[in-house]
Amino acid sequence: MIIVVNTKCSKYEIDKLINHINSKGVSTNLVQGESQSVIGLIGDTTKIDSDDLLALPCVEKVLKVQEPFKKANRLFKPDDTIVDVLGNKVGGGHIGIMAGPCSVESETQIIEIAQKVKASGANFLRGGAFKPRTSPYSFQGLESQGLELLKLAKNETGLPIVTELMSTDYIDKFVEDVDVIQIGARNMQNFDLLKQIGKTNKPILLKRGLSATIEEWIMSAEYIMAGGNENIILCERGIRTFETYTRNTLDLSAIPIVKRLSHLPVIVDPSHSAGDWRLVEPLAKAAIIAGADGLMIEVHNDPQHALCDGKQSIKPEKFDEIMKKVKILSEIEGKSI
Amino acid sequence: MIIVVNTKCSKYEIDKLINHINSKGVSTNLVQGESQSVIGLIGDTTKIDSDDLLALPCVEKVLKVQEPFKKANRLFKPDDTIVDVLGNKVGGGHIGIMAGPCSVESETQIIEIAQKVKASGANFLRGGAFKPRTSPYSFQGLESQGLELLKLAKNETGLPIVTELMSTDYIDKFVEDVDVIQIGARNMQNFDLLKQIGKTNKPILLKRGLSATIEEWIMSAEYIMAGGNENIILCERGIRTFETYTRNTLDLSAIPIVKRLSHLPVIVDPSHSAGDWRLVEPLAKAAIIAGADGLMIEVHNDPQHALCDGKQSIKPEKFDEIMKKVKILSEIEGKSI
Amino acid sequence: MIIVVNTKCSKYEIDKLINHINSKGVSTNLVQGESQSVIGLIGDTTKIDSDDLLALPCVEKVLKVQEPFKKANRLFKPDDTIVDVLGNKVGGGHIGIMAGPCSVESETQIIEIAQKVKASGANFLRGGAFKPRTSPYSFQGLESQGLELLKLAKNETGLPIVTELMSTDYIDKFVEDVDVIQIGARNMQNFDLLKQIGKTNKPILLKRGLSATIEEWIMSAEYIMAGGNENIILCERGIRTFETYTRNTLDLSAIPIVKRLSHLPVIVDPSHSAGDWRLVEPLAKAAIIAGADGLMIEVHNDPQHALCDGKQSIKPEKFDEIMKKVKILSEIEGKSI
Amino acid sequence: MIIVVNTKCSKYEIDKLINHINSKGVSTNLVQGESQSVIGLIGDTTKIDSDDLLALPCVEKVLKVQEPFKKANRLFKPDDTIVDVLGNKVGGGHIGIMAGPCSVESETQIIEIAQKVKASGANFLRGGAFKPRTSPYSFQGLESQGLELLKLAKNETGLPIVTELMSTDYIDKFVEDVDVIQIGARNMQNFDLLKQIGKTNKPILLKRGLSATIEEWIMSAEYIMAGGNENIILCERGIRTFETYTRNTLDLSAIPIVKRLSHLPVIVDPSHSAGDWRLVEPLAKAAIIAGADGLMIEVHNDPQHALCDGKQSIKPEKFDEIMKKVKILSEIEGKSI
Repeated sequence: MIIVVNTKCSKYEIDKLINHINSKGVSTNLVQGESQSVIGLIGDTTKIDSDDLLALPCVEKVLKVQEPFKKANRLFKPDDTIVDVLGNKVGGGHIGIMAGPCSVESETQIIEIAQKVKASGANFLRGGAFKPRTSPYSFQGLESQGLELLKLAKNETGLPIVTELMSTDYIDKFVEDVDVIQIGARNMQNFDLLKQIGKTNKPILLKRGLSATIEEWIMSAEYIMAGGNENIILCERGIRTFETYTRNTLDLSAIPIVKRLSHLPVIVDPSHSAGDWRLVEPLAKAAIIAGADGLMIEVHNDPQHALCDGKQSIKPEKFDEIMKKVKILSEIEGKSI
Repeated sequence: MIIVVNTKCSKYEIDKLINHINSKGVSTNLVQGESQSVIGLIGDTTKIDSDDLLALPCVEKVLKVQEPFKKANRLFKPDDTIVDVLGNKVGGGHIGIMAGPCSVESETQIIEIAQKVKASGANFLRGGAFKPRTSPYSFQGLESQGLELLKLAKNETGLPIVTELMSTDYIDKFVEDVDVIQIGARNMQNFDLLKQIGKTNKPILLKRGLSATIEEWIMSAEYIMAGGNENIILCERGIRTFETYTRNTLDLSAIPIVKRLSHLPVIVDPSHSAGDWRLVEPLAKAAIIAGADGLMIEVHNDPQHALCDGKQSIKPEKFDEIMKKVKILSEIEGKSI
Repeated sequence: MIIVVNTKCSKYEIDKLINHINSKGVSTNLVQGESQSVIGLIGDTTKIDSDDLLALPCVEKVLKVQEPFKKANRLFKPDDTIVDVLGNKVGGGHIGIMAGPCSVESETQIIEIAQKVKASGANFLRGGAFKPRTSPYSFQGLESQGLELLKLAKNETGLPIVTELMSTDYIDKFVEDVDVIQIGARNMQNFDLLKQIGKTNKPILLKRGLSATIEEWIMSAEYIMAGGNENIILCERGIRTFETYTRNTLDLSAIPIVKRLSHLPVIVDPSHSAGDWRLVEPLAKAAIIAGADGLMIEVHNDPQHALCDGKQSIKPEKFDEIMKKVKILSEIEGKSI
Repeated sequence: MIIVVNTKCSKYEIDKLINHINSKGVSTNLVQGESQSVIGLIGDTTKIDSDDLLALPCVEKVLKVQEPFKKANRLFKPDDTIVDVLGNKVGGGHIGIMAGPCSVESETQIIEIAQKVKASGANFLRGGAFKPRTSPYSFQGLESQGLELLKLAKNETGLPIVTELMSTDYIDKFVEDVDVIQIGARNMQNFDLLKQIGKTNKPILLKRGLSATIEEWIMSAEYIMAGGNENIILCERGIRTFETYTRNTLDLSAIPIVKRLSHLPVIVDPSHSAGDWRLVEPLAKAAIIAGADGLMIEVHNDPQHALCDGKQSIKPEKFDEIMKKVKILSEIEGKSI
């Protein structure tokens, strides 16, 4: 970290500031410029909060030199993390394809969709049992019953289950029933939830928050890792911008950036980001070719009668078509599904 | 709601769509334009999800005519809601001033600050016991011990306590110990938490999410109200934009808009939005004159040694100075603290 | 257009409003809902400004049914526009690759780069002569001398020239010397410039403004087309968001959306959007596979000594490598370079 | 400026980098941390472009210590700039109130409005002659004829004229006819226009761009000042965010920040930012109490029939009411109109 010193401060005040910082076990190096001086902090600064420094007298600005995450940092673990879920790998050259309906609706529905997406090449079944909805009057999911139906579909197809956890009350149940616990965009900074799943050993799918910077997103992964659970798959699903033709703006630049900063795998959800089934194919293909380690796609056998998000769901036939192209692009990228 | 019909659809398909909508108990009115037709939906459309309509064939766009909230809607309850906390009122001409440190740190600290802010005119004591921090390595608050210290300060001063709840595990404790339960910006769409506090009868302070639209913010209040708890104070605390001189961009336009759309009181937090103590005074004054029902301000007796967010905390003397101006402005607005 | 009527308005006032609208030559259709009425406007509403309607009494909201652009609208011209520049086509299955340095610096530099990018498959030479710089103290380009050097490079290689016009003072010179006139992001709503180039017959490359919606961007194309010039290539170059790891957030979703709304070709500039040469390859590939009609890429023979934007420039060897991949992806998309 | 050195670089490479920087006439100071080294640049770094440094090998990041503007910087000119327009002052305790219609429409209209706003206390007449409109099919203003009508209104009332210049073609005419030349949000980075008005001696009203950071906005003022014209009034008019209840989000935090960073006066336009006449009063009052040096308000005698932006225009009676409150608030702030 580097402190930019307020130009109005005297030498005496600057010395006091330097002593204060040294007292925290960090060395300093004062560089005096013509109109501005700066203090470099040397040593382990991860325990020093830049916001706390800003409250000290004579501190004008604090500039960060290093990323604030450790366990998720590629600097300290250069090799790709590969998350292995019942033999289905994500990361390190392995593409994970998670497909299924927005909401689990019935046994027939979920089994039929699971069979179809498996046939097309998906290796995970996604499906919502507990649904985060903006309105309290919208369908909130089949909840526990939905989990049971997902288990039936898993029994039929062997596909591991990915589904969203919204409440710490259900952690034990999810650890038992679910293969990948999804943390939704709206809970990306629900720190209580992050801490508690950090104590489990379940693979976690961590979606990026609607207004989360890449750094905050990786810091949320760091929360989980700090608890001991390092099986994390990041998922880009669009950020909020001023553009209204799409529900959110998919930030594909985040893929190569995350891969440079962190060793964790990162996948893309083209269905939620765009909110429009017509964009799923181009965005899914673009994600793979930009280096994503997988996709999460909404597939529904009858989108027009889906209980939620039908607008962004594609039919199994369309999914099959997209998968054919995704396979070719994965090969071009030297990866396997 | 109004459906814009896809120009490629035949009369037969449009009729099918109309029948489908009618089957949901909603009347329709087809308006045929020269190059575009629209269908108006008449009746109670709150149960119809616009996203579901978008999945239907021939539906090009769905335009919303009415706000999606009911209980929070001023249309259905024209009078201002006044939240009364142990005799301290917020809304309907009553200004609530919530002041105190970012974090509760010690008995001496919290009692000293409580006494000082009370002397300057604050009528609520704010203080963090459980702290949401971006980094797992930052100070997370004194937690339960912090709550005990807040109670001591309340005993000394009579000021009701406002503090943040981050986990459903602590709801019972908060209902017993706390006077106003704060839901932070990062949990504004933690629907599980919203549902559970909706079942209590405690006043709730609901902060706007960093990237929440005004509509989504009021919908989160609607979640709490749908559970039966109508004692809600909204709190604007800045939204995320591209500007980097401030931590967040305070959206003061939201104040008159919320007051037009809803009967709920709305206050402003100038400390968190700006992230800079130098902006607290101008933004606090601007908030009151723009019609806010109160303020939430960080005050620390020793900001330089605060355990969190010292940069945005003001000293009790500065708070006293601001309060003198805030009182004058409140009177100009015809309100009382 | 649809007008949502203020609930407080009487039947008499609504009739007055309807008469007023009818007087503008537009038919209306009143739909009375239970708690809300709406008025549908039928006929050619392109001359009616929705903002003007909002000033009328009893008008609560105005909802737009149709896109406000005509000449750029695919609805009225279903076939792809193909812009032909000296035999090099962009759009309708033809990929245009524009490559070259941020700034023209010297004869050797521009000719060497032009030869190399041509050898790798570029079919346009880009190069800045007049440079928009945030600081008045930064290098502003070689200006007219830069144009001369571009012409030398064109003579050597046959590559048509793409370069940015910042001032109406130079229109005649650009019409004479340049093959594609680029309008930069900062001038996307410089309406005076748009009107004047609309009167020329030169192909125009219109970059999306940093905070322009897709609709505003196409409306700027409409400005040029309204003047008679329909040779427009749109260029997505990132929008401004809160994320700071990239200079701008490339909005690839815009590609399929623009292609649905408009018949104009749309290309992508991965260099400026990311502001980081390490992102050029993944974003260039993603753009092509998402359906872009071309790319604009900064290539410099010596990025470290470039007079501007060296950080985002790639070397000719890297460009050659990217082009090999872009060709394969173009073929997969059924397009030719 | 501070360079964060890439961790993979050898001592030899770092030395080469340091030599390169020294060769540009800037001293350096290398600070070696445990896992990261940084190089401090000492001396006049305004000529060094941080983007250029980023292209050099071994440069990981560049951190800016100082603001990039000089002439507009309060550091180098601590006293408030007061812009004096025919005796009407803005800045340094003087409030400027600019009021009038969006568009000049007729002699009667502009004279009537001018007389009324003057009677209520406005000291400048604003009115659009050349109008920037998103659509080429919308009313574009009376253009030169509008300027003539503004001059008539000035003759009647003595109010100096503020109006927008969109094209360099009209600079001479504006210098002759107009008292304050307005540069609109969309032209804030029309550098050609900025350079040319920098050579005049007319007071300039520089609006903030829709997506301009505070730094970029001040840099655009620096462009004008670099040309020799230091009579600049900045105008905050809202930035683009995701919120849709307002046309733009008024950023009042920008007022105290600009006043700290720069000596230039800064006013606020509550009409354009909100796009809704109902928000004009609360935002105008909030702007003054937050420290603004003035206001720009749209006033129309017949908003319902205004040729543009009627939705955000207030009537003269409402303006009179607001002015009474603005006067009281200006006095509280120790300023005079």
